[in-house]
Amino acid sequence: MKLFYCETLNPRKACAAARYLNADLEFVRVDLANGEQRTPEFLALNPNGKVPVLQYGDGQSLWEANAIMCFLSDMTGADFWPKDDRQPDVMRWLSWDASHFTLHAATLWFENELRPLFGQAPDPAVVEQAELQLRQFAQVLDSHLAHRIFVVADRLSVADFALAAALPYWRSARLPLDDFEHIKRWHDQLNTIPAWREPFPARPSAGG
Amino acid sequence: MKLFYCETLNPRKACAAARYLNADLEFVRVDLANGEQRTPEFLALNPNGKVPVLQYGDGQSLWEANAIMCFLSDMTGADFWPKDDRQPDVMRWLSWDASHFTLHAATLWFENELRPLFGQAPDPAVVEQAELQLRQFAQVLDSHLAHRIFVVADRLSVADFALAAALPYWRSARLPLDDFEHIKRWHDQLNTIPAWREPFPARPSAGG
Repeated sequence: MKLFYCETLNPRKACAAARYLNADLEFVRVDLANGEQRTPEFLALNPNGKVPVLQYGDGQSLWEANAIMCFLSDMTGADFWPKDDRQPDVMRWLSWDASHFTLHAATLWFENELRPLFGQAPDPAVVEQAELQLRQFAQVLDSHLAHRIFVVADRLSVADFALAAALPYWRSARLPLDDFEHIKRWHDQLNTIPAWREPFPARPSAGG
Repeated sequence: MKLFYCETLNPRKACAAARYLNADLEFVRVDLANGEQRTPEFLALNPNGKVPVLQYGDGQSLWEANAIMCFLSDMTGADFWPKDDRQPDVMRWLSWDASHFTLHAATLWFENELRPLFGQAPDPAVVEQAELQLRQFAQVLDSHLAHRIFVVADRLSVADFALAAALPYWRSARLPLDDFEHIKRWHDQLNTIPAWREPFPARPSAGG
């Protein structure tokens, strides 16, 4: 089994889940800067040309980081993607996250962190709108976390890794979240998990 | 059990699922135009001030249409949200849909259909970008459906209702999908399901 990844926002949660679950797989780095995601071989794994992708079994592949997290939880027999009546609640937060929280946080990551890497300036109108939206939805998450350890039923689940996807870029992406104390406490706690803190394989040194 | 809805894109799939599953619930219309979603009573059900919301049990509530579809499937013992190894595949399409397909289709619905209702013109730059993105991702779905009846394992699931969320607005939202014959065939087939075709309760006539 192979997990194709790059050191970017969405693969980060799949890699963190793979490490957290001790899944028996090989990490395969895809060099996005050199267009490896557009080769015919890669597009046969994921026609969207995106990472992460999990390749397993007899040439089967699964894409979308949330789906990969659930698959790996099932495969390892973990409770990370719960199989009981917590499922609709986890689904609520995955869906809300994709449509609101990480949507806007990832926009700021793209504008404030990725664009400058390619010599472009962030678009001020896009940044302003994303900050406004992110703050609005962060209030909902912060209130939810005020009396909870984790997002669903006080047990770590895929919902936590999904909702926190952009938070490792808190400073570098300039996420306007400093006023949300419960989100901060919750993410500090996620950072005590080695797999979350260091999800990516070490890269060979570029030097000599 | 009460399902709070309005005749808009996201509540549509929750209402269609409730009818398709013959869920024993009361439909409660929320008058978005008059701001009913911003009352303290409604915000206690969903702090996001959005429909749909399912109210059940002893004052519990569930929001996000995809989560409501899964909950209703579990509650009615249906196979619509499958409980076996189809789950990661369904999750793949729910996630992909939220981040790509219906994200861009809903943008066109908002620009081309909702804005004019409020006397505003669509933003040409937003429309152009959403059309471009929607066509790109539609190609992935169209190829997937070329040899399949439904999206996952050739059985109707929440993935079909999620992916098709914007398609009832195909003409009115000017979705650029006419060239995608498999998507068209698949949606024609969904339209043979009465619950999909007519998801909303009849409204009392406005006239005397």
